[in-house]
This record gives sequence, structure tokens and C-alpha cells, in this order.
Amino acid sequence: MLNPSCNVVSDKIQSFTQCSFWGSPKILPNLNRRRNVSFPCSKRPDPSVSVSTTTNNGLTQTENGSGSIGLADRLRLGSLTEDGLSYKENFIVRSYEVGINKTATVETIANLLQEVGCNHAQSVGFSTDGFATTPTMRKLHLIWVTARMHIEIYRYPAWSDVVEIETWCQAEGKIGTRRDFILKDYANGEVIGRATSKWVMMNMDTRRLERVTPQIGKEYLIYCPKELRLAFPEPNNNSLKKISKLEDPAQYSKQGLVPRRGDLDMNHHVNNVTYIGWTLESTPEELVDTHELRSITLDYRRECQRNDVVDSLTSVEPIKLNESILQNGANGSPTSTRDENDSVQFLHLLRLSADGSEINRGRTEWRRKPERQ
Amino acid sequence: MLNPSCNVVSDKIQSFTQCSFWGSPKILPNLNRRRNVSFPCSKRPDPSVSVSTTTNNGLTQTENGSGSIGLADRLRLGSLTEDGLSYKENFIVRSYEVGINKTATVETIANLLQEVGCNHAQSVGFSTDGFATTPTMRKLHLIWVTARMHIEIYRYPAWSDVVEIETWCQAEGKIGTRRDFILKDYANGEVIGRATSKWVMMNMDTRRLERVTPQIGKEYLIYCPKELRLAFPEPNNNSLKKISKLEDPAQYSKQGLVPRRGDLDMNHHVNNVTYIGWTLESTPEELVDTHELRSITLDYRRECQRNDVVDSLTSVEPIKLNESILQNGANGSPTSTRDENDSVQFLHLLRLSADGSEINRGRTEWRRKPERQ
Repeated sequence: MLNPSCNVVSDKIQSFTQCSFWGSPKILPNLNRRRNVSFPCSKRPDPSVSVSTTTNNGLTQTENGSGSIGLADRLRLGSLTEDGLSYKENFIVRSYEVGINKTATVETIANLLQEVGCNHAQSVGFSTDGFATTPTMRKLHLIWVTARMHIEIYRYPAWSDVVEIETWCQAEGKIGTRRDFILKDYANGEVIGRATSKWVMMNMDTRRLERVTPQIGKEYLIYCPKELRLAFPEPNNNSLKKISKLEDPAQYSKQGLVPRRGDLDMNHHVNNVTYIGWTLESTPEELVDTHELRSITLDYRRECQRNDVVDSLTSVEPIKLNESILQNGANGSPTSTRDENDSVQFLHLLRLSADGSEINRGRTEWRRKPERQ
Repeated sequence: MLNPSCNVVSDKIQSFTQCSFWGSPKILPNLNRRRNVSFPCSKRPDPSVSVSTTTNNGLTQTENGSGSIGLADRLRLGSLTEDGLSYKENFIVRSYEVGINKTATVETIANLLQEVGCNHAQSVGFSTDGFATTPTMRKLHLIWVTARMHIEIYRYPAWSDVVEIETWCQAEGKIGTRRDFILKDYANGEVIGRATSKWVMMNMDTRRLERVTPQIGKEYLIYCPKELRLAFPEPNNNSLKKISKLEDPAQYSKQGLVPRRGDLDMNHHVNNVTYIGWTLESTPEELVDTHELRSITLDYRRECQRNDVVDSLTSVEPIKLNESILQNGANGSPTSTRDENDSVQFLHLLRLSADGSEINRGRTEWRRKPERQ
């Protein structure tokens, strides 16, 4: 679990600091082992980090090579909402983004959440330096790193469906922040999914977690809703659940998973969607034929490099007796914990094959596939 | 090599028929082992294959579940060109589509080529049945399968760059057709890439290749340019080159590659981009650090299933003496065949680990990375 105290160095935090997902894919000089993040934090990028020039076609060209931002902004199907405190964008599900169920995969959904987060940051002027930290954060060498991601999908969009994603940020405790998402079918306004992610602030030099000071809060909270606004407002909802450690031996496993070159981002780190794929890889094949993912929660502990070898472990999560219909004689199989809605829950663990270090811990819920895809 | 004669059954063609890439991801009843294709072939989908209904929000909803096509069409940044004989669409490079070079990966480019091909087919009314075959083709159980894909990238777009892709089809010999692509930087019109794909017509029942009859030609050629129009008009250009078989032992190899669940399309077949990734996986690591892919050519022979295990093999392709500067003492390493522009060529082979069956044969060219990404 995340240690919330500040200025404490431990192995747990050391490894935890490798994780900073769902952010803007830019590199930071002298930060070789960390992924980088995007967050709406200040109106004006630090000129010492990014140099903008104007090309001969009049478009803004940034020093880091990501040009045409003005043009992309004009063409993109997204913008800040009227009050400026959240961002909405429409995405058309592409032909190659659908999977075995003929609908968008959870990897596609995760990619789009990253994209809408980046575009939100960009829309308030934070992304040209690649970090979108506040001026004070940059001065103090502080960045955001992801602690948890939770995604729920109620209906998966099909090829050519249009999905509207709204996203916003708010403070979360004394050391953290939260980015929430609501996904709608743009054709009829139906909420088809929700997601939330939790981030903490870390000092790049010491790798310690640090409190969000009033000055830093002031710099980024101007772009956040003033009243508490949660994608999951229900008490005790699944996004808040602690994920128990999966104990050996796991019921299902897939060992020896290795990153492919295409899994690496610009920092040569394994991109976040690969972890989702690895986590799901050890889910039993027969379940995937009949069920679809309803929700996934991942707690990030450490990040993988190009040459790491990873084991994916999965076990059925026992559910409370009063929530389930236990089926006689089926102990130990997924059906033993199916509830009234024929849903099933799993615990997951990704770990390094070499030394067993925990990479992430996950929890998934699955429901029976609808009759017609 | 592809056997161009018709009505001939051979092991080569049997295995070749597993490949039908770059198409519309729809399923065909009673065609369990083949990927499906998209091609602009007839104005009106066969009502026996697809039933369209109108939902209560006024949007077209197809029986196969891919709804909101009208809405997506309105929001999409693409349309037929003025003469109706090609299709252009703009794509904004997304944050998660860039790789280690901080630019779009070749997998991203390949995905976008598939998408623009599908959207072209859809724009002329062919995609709701998932095959976009002509009425005569459907009557005779004929489909298109991909024989070759060739992609050249002169400058990789960065995050938030806008790429305009134009695509069109033409007849190619007596049994085939061709889909070409031109990629431009939308900001300044610079051609940043070109691609071409070759397809042949196959009988689904007999798995034999068949000639394009005048009736079938008439049905789809109305949407094709009347004059020969080639993305690669140069004589003896690389898209036409025969790919020599890579002989054992290969200089570089990566063995035991396995499909992940996310690699599977709706037919439970490995999606086409995975083959590109596997092909590149055995390219030497040290070259990828200093060079970037200039072109890739893949000849498709057979398709992989979920439980296949694949070996990726790579060797440097010898180039003619008068095209190269041989470096003394570096025989057998990639540098031994670097030419004046510090480029290097490889031959590739993907094969099944179990029995050595050839999956595809490839050729790549690499150039030194530009100084500034």
C-alpha cells in the first residue's frame, strides 16, 4: 500500500516512484528511470524548459519536436467546458481499436483516457514543457506519479461509435490529487463508463513523497472544480477498495511475459497499457469467452524496463456469502464465486520473474457478455 | 512468392489464404479461419448480409452492432475527394501513439492506413456488411486477401502533428487489386510517407485464387482512378522488389513470441500490426538506438492463432558493391553493408516455432536518426 507519510524513504517508495502513468509522454533531462506526467498546473510553460518558435507556416513549433499544436487544437473534437474546470473530447472508435468482442478493448479505453488527460493539460497551456508541473513544482523538482487507476465500463462502444470523455482534476488528501473521467455514448448521452486515477507528488532527486504546499495548490487548483466532484460519488464504491495481496500459489498464471519494442514509450519504459494487457493475460481463457471486463483497478508499485521478464498471476477473489450463490461442487473454479448477476471477481499480481518484486496489484470484475454484441 | 495462376490448389495457396489484412474488422459466418477484408466494391450492401435499422435517435444502426455510423461520418475529419475516386482523412497523432523516438511508431502508421482504408470503403457505402465485396463476389463467395504491404516513411510525425492520408484503389493484374496511400504533413503539405498494398481474390470455399471477372471489375472500378495512379511511380522502386528467403542460421533472432489477448481481433486472429512488431523484434538493439525505420515490406503467407508460438529471424541484406562502402574488419555486422547515407537493410522471416511454417517474409531499410527528434 502507498505510504502516505512525507519525507520518508523506504524500499516501498523507492520502487513506487518508478510509476507515473497517464501523463504527457515527454522526457525530462536527467530523469532516466521515470515516466513523465501531465497535469494542468500552470498557465504558462517554463521558458527554461521549452522554447517555442514560429515556423514559416505560422504554426507553433516546440523545441521538443511536437509541432502543429495550434493546428491540432483547431481540428481536435475537444475543448474546455464552459466554466473552464473540466475538458470534454469526442473520439470515434477506430477499426483497429476493437477486439474479440467486436467492441473497443479496455486497452483502447485506457489509451483514450490518457489522451484526454494530455489534451486537457494542453488546453490550459501546460504541455509544451512535457510535464505540466506548476512553477513551484519545477523549482523544487517535484512531479506527479500515479498511485492507482480504476476503470468501470458499463457498455463497450463498437467500431464507429462516438465516445465523449469528460475529465477534471481535484486535490486528494495532503499529498495527492485525483483525475476523474466520465465516458458517454455521444449519440444518446448514456453514461457507458467512469474512471478515476490517484496521483501523489514526488521529489525527483530524493524520490520522497511530498505534501502539496498551499503555493502549489494555488497554482493548479484554479483549473479544478471548487466543489467536490467525484466520478464515483457512491459510498464504499469499488474505486476505493483495498486490493488484497494475491497469495501463492495463484490459480492461474502466465509466466515469462516480455516487453516488445512497440511497448516502449519515448523514455524506453513500458507503456501503461501493456501493464493492463499483462494483468489480463492470466485470466482464464474460458471466462474470457463468456464474460467481459466490467471494472479494473490497478495499484502501481514499480515500472518495467525493456529487458525485464514478468509473471502475471490471477486468482478468484472470494466474495461475501450474502452476495453470492455458491454452487455446490464447483469450489476452486471461477463459478464458485459467481454472484446473482453471473459476475466474477479476480485478484491479480504482476511481478518480476527474477526476484519476485511486485510491479502492480490488480482487481477485476467480469460480467456475462450481452446476448448481442 | 505468390502464385498468380488461377484455380490451382497448392500448400502455398492454402496457407496464403489465411492472410487478408488491412480490412474492415467484421466477421463472416462460417469463415472461422480467415481474417476479413474491406474494399470499395459496390454502392449498396447486400441486405441478406446486413440489416440496417434506424434507432430512436435517428442514427443508422447496423445489425452487427456498429452503430452511429452517420454521426461518426459527420465528425470524422475525412471525405471523398472532389472526383470521388480517392479518400482523404486527417489524423492527429495521439500521446500514446508515439514511441522511443518521440514520434509516431510504424505500428501507429500501419493502424492509420487500415483505418483510412476502412473509412474509404465506408464512405462509398461498403462497410456495413463487413466485407465490402461486390454483389457478384458475394454471390460467388469471393473475398480479397492481402499479398503484400509496403510502407515508406520519410519523416515521422510527432505528438499532435496532423497527418493527412489519401488512399485509392486500382486493378493490379488479372487476379489482383492495389490500395495506395500518400501521407502528408497537413501543416505544410510535405509528403512524409507513401504506402501500397496488393490484394488477390480468393474463393472462400475452395481457397483458390480467382481472376477478377469483367463483371466484378465493373462493380468496383467505378470508384477507382481511370488513369494509372501509383503511390510509387518510379521504375524498379522498392515496393516491387522480390524478398529473398532468409537462410538459416539468421544473424539475429527472437524466439518464442506469443500473441497476447489484446493482439486478437474480433475473429480471434492476430491483428496485422502484431506481425509488424514481431518482424521488428529481432532487429539488433544497437541499431534501433541509432537508426529509424525508413521502409518495411511484408509478404503475407499465413495467419497466426491465439496459441501459436512464433520465431522472428533477421539478417543483414547484402547490397551491391557499387551501392555501398564496405568497412574493413566489420564483416557480418550491420555496419558492413551500410551505404553512403549510413543506411542498412535487413531480411526478416516470421515462422511457427512448432513446424517452421513461414508466416511472413519481410525486408526493412533503416536510416540514421535525425539529429533532433
